[in-house]
Amino acid sequence: MKIKVVKVGGAIVEDEAQLQQLISDFSRIEGPKVLVHGGGRRATKIASQLGIESHMVGGRRITDGEMLNVVTMVYGGLVNKHLVAMLQAQGFNAVGLTGADMDIIRSHKRPLKKMVVDGEEKMIDFGFVGDVECANGNTLAMLLNQGIIPVIAPLTHDGQGNILNTNADTMASETAKALAKDNDVTLIYSFEKKGVLSNPDDDDSVIPVITHESFETYKTDGTISGGMLPKIENALAAVDAGVSRVIITLATAIDGNSGTVIKK
Amino acid sequence: MKIKVVKVGGAIVEDEAQLQQLISDFSRIEGPKVLVHGGGRRATKIASQLGIESHMVGGRRITDGEMLNVVTMVYGGLVNKHLVAMLQAQGFNAVGLTGADMDIIRSHKRPLKKMVVDGEEKMIDFGFVGDVECANGNTLAMLLNQGIIPVIAPLTHDGQGNILNTNADTMASETAKALAKDNDVTLIYSFEKKGVLSNPDDDDSVIPVITHESFETYKTDGTISGGMLPKIENALAAVDAGVSRVIITLATAIDGNSGTVIKK
Repeated sequence: MKIKVVKVGGAIVEDEAQLQQLISDFSRIEGPKVLVHGGGRRATKIASQLGIESHMVGGRRITDGEMLNVVTMVYGGLVNKHLVAMLQAQGFNAVGLTGADMDIIRSHKRPLKKMVVDGEEKMIDFGFVGDVECANGNTLAMLLNQGIIPVIAPLTHDGQGNILNTNADTMASETAKALAKDNDVTLIYSFEKKGVLSNPDDDDSVIPVITHESFETYKTDGTISGGMLPKIENALAAVDAGVSRVIITLATAIDGNSGTVIKK
Repeated sequence: MKIKVVKVGGAIVEDEAQLQQLISDFSRIEGPKVLVHGGGRRATKIASQLGIESHMVGGRRITDGEMLNVVTMVYGGLVNKHLVAMLQAQGFNAVGLTGADMDIIRSHKRPLKKMVVDGEEKMIDFGFVGDVECANGNTLAMLLNQGIIPVIAPLTHDGQGNILNTNADTMASETAKALAKDNDVTLIYSFEKKGVLSNPDDDDSVIPVITHESFETYKTDGTISGGMLPKIENALAAVDAGVSRVIITLATAIDGNSGTVIKK
């Protein structure tokens, strides 16, 4: 099968107009497809309405028990089911899944991490956060073979009964890698720019293709720098793991026909 | 297939000790099985924490837009995913579903209902509440055939992109009826008593079997009255629609070997 795995961020799924556009764009993608979504801002908002403080260390969220309940509600319920109902209205047979459902993505609780906080070295417990162990490509392929669209929320489980909060980008790449064992998979990351830009001040300076080789050149000459580096390193790692291509593109251009293509 | 459809109420899934017991009891049921759950009390609690008032008319909840978001989060996310993760920990391959997922249960928004409120006749809009149109027995049977346990939250969709709040008892009976077209289905309602009692003051006076015929007798002689009447009428309707038997039993006895059996 030729499969497209599309990751969309929280900002898009939280704005009703952008969401309508997303559903319409996603509907037009031909062939078997998977949607992986975020939802962080809405979780933060609902947590604050519930009087639950969002604890951050080094810019990263700590998921304590109360916050885990919020993300389970918001990602797995509110955002996920809304997307599923909207896809059904377009005539697509979607199913909303967390990693626990059909055991599609298993993880383990992130071990304590050594971090420097306020100049002091500390062991940080990120709480109920899951580092992905494996995605179940066979089960996802079984659904796709039946014309069903998996809509995946950024939650996994540890096989011991615990739901764990998990990075949506990672869920998307692990899903793509698992499906790539037996299929031709394109992984599409939607983004606020048209692609990877050669000139950050020129929105149209999209680099059409990046390979391991050209990435080294772009790194050396400073064309690509900062936060874009790990994004492309992750994309290249997915490609090395068998994903045919990774596309970084505008959220309104998720059909895979524009943006930056990262391939071998 | 011999299938058991088990409905458990909100009170059970909201208490961690009772929930552990439920998962353990449900795990011991042999063969293909479906779990349908409620969750109303937790939704009311979280709504109140969010400052959302629960509006009731004649003892029934009005589901406005804000309340719909709460039940979508709580039923479809918090309660459902917790149950799925717990079943996975027992080695069962569960999948959490609302009616929107795989289009398993479709409904339409309840039309305005004429009701007498405070002595005055009014047309009441219950809001985003779904009256079930049909359940998709084929898709549920496909999952069961693959050894997957559907865990169903009391939410449906209207095919127009809207999630609708739906009575969990109705979801259970519609699921059972849809599966009964091609299978031998037992529908089990868990309950705070050991079964239908012939003497309300004697918890052990369980009536073992109720048929259409004996129900008429029990009604006439007053053995069964009040709120139990519609429960048994619904059970008999399910039996008439092809469900092999309906069992009303204690929440800690959902294996189908005790309680009151309602059959043709």
